[in-house]
Amino acid sequence: MGARIEQVEVRVFATLDWTTKDSDGHTHPGPERRAEHALLTVRDGDGAEGHCLCSGEALRPSVLDGFVRKVVIGEDPFMRERVWNRLYRMQRGSGGQLTDRAIGYLDQALWDLAGRKLGAPVWQLLGGARSTVPAYASTMCGDDIEGGLRTPEDYGRFAEALVATGYSAVKLHTWMPPVPGAPDPDMDARACAAVREAVGPDVPLMLDANHWYTRTQALALGRALQQLDYYWYEEPMEEASTSSYRWLAEQLEIPVIGPETAFGRVHTRAEWIAQGACDIVRVGVNDTGGITPAMKIVHLADAFNMDAEVHGGGSGNLAILGAMENGRWYERGLLHPHFDYDAVPPHLNSAVDPIDEHGNVQMPEAPGLGDDLCFEHIEENIVARW
Amino acid sequence: MGARIEQVEVRVFATLDWTTKDSDGHTHPGPERRAEHALLTVRDGDGAEGHCLCSGEALRPSVLDGFVRKVVIGEDPFMRERVWNRLYRMQRGSGGQLTDRAIGYLDQALWDLAGRKLGAPVWQLLGGARSTVPAYASTMCGDDIEGGLRTPEDYGRFAEALVATGYSAVKLHTWMPPVPGAPDPDMDARACAAVREAVGPDVPLMLDANHWYTRTQALALGRALQQLDYYWYEEPMEEASTSSYRWLAEQLEIPVIGPETAFGRVHTRAEWIAQGACDIVRVGVNDTGGITPAMKIVHLADAFNMDAEVHGGGSGNLAILGAMENGRWYERGLLHPHFDYDAVPPHLNSAVDPIDEHGNVQMPEAPGLGDDLCFEHIEENIVARW
Repeated sequence: MGARIEQVEVRVFATLDWTTKDSDGHTHPGPERRAEHALLTVRDGDGAEGHCLCSGEALRPSVLDGFVRKVVIGEDPFMRERVWNRLYRMQRGSGGQLTDRAIGYLDQALWDLAGRKLGAPVWQLLGGARSTVPAYASTMCGDDIEGGLRTPEDYGRFAEALVATGYSAVKLHTWMPPVPGAPDPDMDARACAAVREAVGPDVPLMLDANHWYTRTQALALGRALQQLDYYWYEEPMEEASTSSYRWLAEQLEIPVIGPETAFGRVHTRAEWIAQGACDIVRVGVNDTGGITPAMKIVHLADAFNMDAEVHGGGSGNLAILGAMENGRWYERGLLHPHFDYDAVPPHLNSAVDPIDEHGNVQMPEAPGLGDDLCFEHIEENIVARW
Repeated sequence: MGARIEQVEVRVFATLDWTTKDSDGHTHPGPERRAEHALLTVRDGDGAEGHCLCSGEALRPSVLDGFVRKVVIGEDPFMRERVWNRLYRMQRGSGGQLTDRAIGYLDQALWDLAGRKLGAPVWQLLGGARSTVPAYASTMCGDDIEGGLRTPEDYGRFAEALVATGYSAVKLHTWMPPVPGAPDPDMDARACAAVREAVGPDVPLMLDANHWYTRTQALALGRALQQLDYYWYEEPMEEASTSSYRWLAEQLEIPVIGPETAFGRVHTRAEWIAQGACDIVRVGVNDTGGITPAMKIVHLADAFNMDAEVHGGGSGNLAILGAMENGRWYERGLLHPHFDYDAVPPHLNSAVDPIDEHGNVQMPEAPGLGDDLCFEHIEENIVARW
C-alpha cells in the first residue's frame, strides 16, 4: 500500500475497574477503583492509525525499543505476515522479554490499521463467515464471597439467571487456590451437577477445571461431566504434557478441549491434533500471538474437521469468530453475581460485545477491530507514554 | 461492508493462443490460433467488480444458475468464508457438476472485488510476507518435436538457456503418453542427468514425473534424482494412494512433494502431512478451490514446519505467495524452446508475472489480483455471455 510505519506508541492511562485479583492471579469482583490500562497505537506516513488495548507491561519501553520498533518502523503496515515472522524469530534470543502477547497486540493493531485505512471491519477483511455469534457465559473462579460463587448451589442459581438473560451456554470456572479447600474434584463435580440441575438438560455446559489435577483426578472428574452431559472439558491438567491429554481423551466420551496456555502457538496445536490429545482445539488471539497466527490455528483445525473454540473475549477474538465456521461460541465474561460485565469503563464509548436478547453478539460494523475507544478520556488521563 | 452481489456473469471471448493440447491433455507449442477464453465477473450494488479468468466450461450456465447464483446473489461479497463453505457443501449433491475449480474461480473473483473496492492488492489484504518471489522455470512435457523436448540433451540445452535468462531453478515435466515410448523412468532419469550436467551443481532442480508409475519404478527414479541432488520429486504415482507416498517418502532422502491433484483439498493434505506421505506439501488456488482454502493449506503446512510449494502461475497463486514465507518459488510456465511465454495475448494489456533479470517476479501493486485485463478487447470479441 506504500506508506510506512512512522510511529509506535504505548499510552498508559487511568480508567475505572470493578474487579480485583487474588494472590494466584484469578479475577474476582471488587469495589470501583482507579486502574491503569494501556493502548498501543501504530501510525503510518499517511496518518492511518491502528490501536489495540494491551498490557503496558508486555510492551514496556525496553520491549518496544529492543524489538518491536526495530522491526516495524519503516515497514509497510500491510506486511503483517513478514512482521509477525520477524518478531517470532526474535523471541528466541529475547530471553523471554518478547512474549506472544506482545506480538499479538502489535498484530492486532496492524489489523486494526488495515481495517481503518480501508474502511472495512477486520472480520470481513479476513473473509466473513457470519455476522452474529452466540455467546456463552463464562463465570469467574469460585470464591468464598457471600452470595457469590461459594457453593455448588451458588453456581446453580447464577447459571439459571444467566440463561434467563439469554446466554445459550454456560461455562464454569470452579475453585482454585487460594480459596480454602480448593482445588477439589468432588466439589467441582458437585458444582457442575448443581448447574445441570438448575438449567435443565438442554443447555450446553462446559467446565474449565483446575489446571493441575493428576491424571486419575482428571479422569474421574471427566467421567462425572459426561454423566451430566457436559459439552466440553477444559484444562484439568498441566498442558505441557501432551501425553496426559492423549491418555485422557482416549478414555473419555466428553470432548476434551485444548491447548489454551501451552507454549508453542500453532505448532503445539498441530501436535495435539496429530496425536489425538484433543477433540476440540483452543485458540485465542492473546494466547497465540495475534489474529494472524490464530487464523492459522482455525485453518489447521478445519483441515482435520475439528472445531476451534475461541478463548476469551474482546474485539480481536470477535474478529476471528466472524471469519470462521468451525467453532460455535464467543466467550463472554468473566461473569459473577456481584459484577456488572456490561458496565462500560470511561475509556470506551461503548462495549464491542453487547449481547442481545437471543444471547448473540453482533459483529462490529465499524472499520478495523471495532473497539469504540474514547480518545478524549485516554488523552486526559495519561499516566505515561513511550 | 453492506452492498450485496447483484450480478454474476461469464463472458466467453475470442483471443489468441500459441499452444495446442495432445490427446492426453498435455500442452505443447502450437501455431498462433484463435482461442476462446472466459472471464467471470461479480458485481455488487455499489458497482464494485471482481474478475477472474476462468474456464467457461467449469462455470457453464447450468453451474452458474444451479449453484453459484443461488448462493451469492444477494450476499455480501465480503462473506467469502460463508460463500465458500456453502458452495463446498453443495458439491456433494451436485453430482460432480460444481467442481473445486468452479468454486475457486468465484473465490478469486470475490478476493479481486475486495481488493479493487478497498484499493489494495490481494496479497496485502491477506497480510504481506514479501513483495518479490523467485521463479522457477517449469517446462512443458516431453514431445517428439525437432529442436523441442525430444531428447535428454534437448532438456539440457533448454535448462541452460533458462538459467541464462535468470531463472533460479528449473523443473522438468518429462515424456508422457501419447509420446511414443513414454513413460519411461530410465528416460526420465537420463533427462534429469542431462539437465544437472548442463546447469552445474548449484541450480535447484525438480522433476514432475509421470503420475502412474508403480512403487518400484517411482523408488528407482527417486534414487536416481537424489544422486543428482534434485530438490524435490513430484507426483510419480497415483495420488489417491496415500500409503504409496508414505512408503516412498520413508525410503527416499529427496523431499517428496504432494498432493497436487488428489481430491479433498485441505483435508487430504492434512492426512498426507499427519501420515508422513510428503516432505513438502503442494498447494494451488485452482486445485483446491481458490485463495481461501489455499491459505488454509499454507497455514496447515506452517503448523507442521512444512513448506507449501505453489502449483501453477497466475495472479491468484501470486497472491498467496505474497502472503506466505513457507514456500520458495513461483512456478512460471509452462515453457518450451518453441514457445514465447512472455507474449501477451490481446485480452491482457500486460502480463501479471513478468520476470526480472534476477529471475524474480514482483507482487502486483494494482488493487485486487492484479490482472491487467483489456476489457475493450474482451467486449469487442464476445462469443457468448451468461
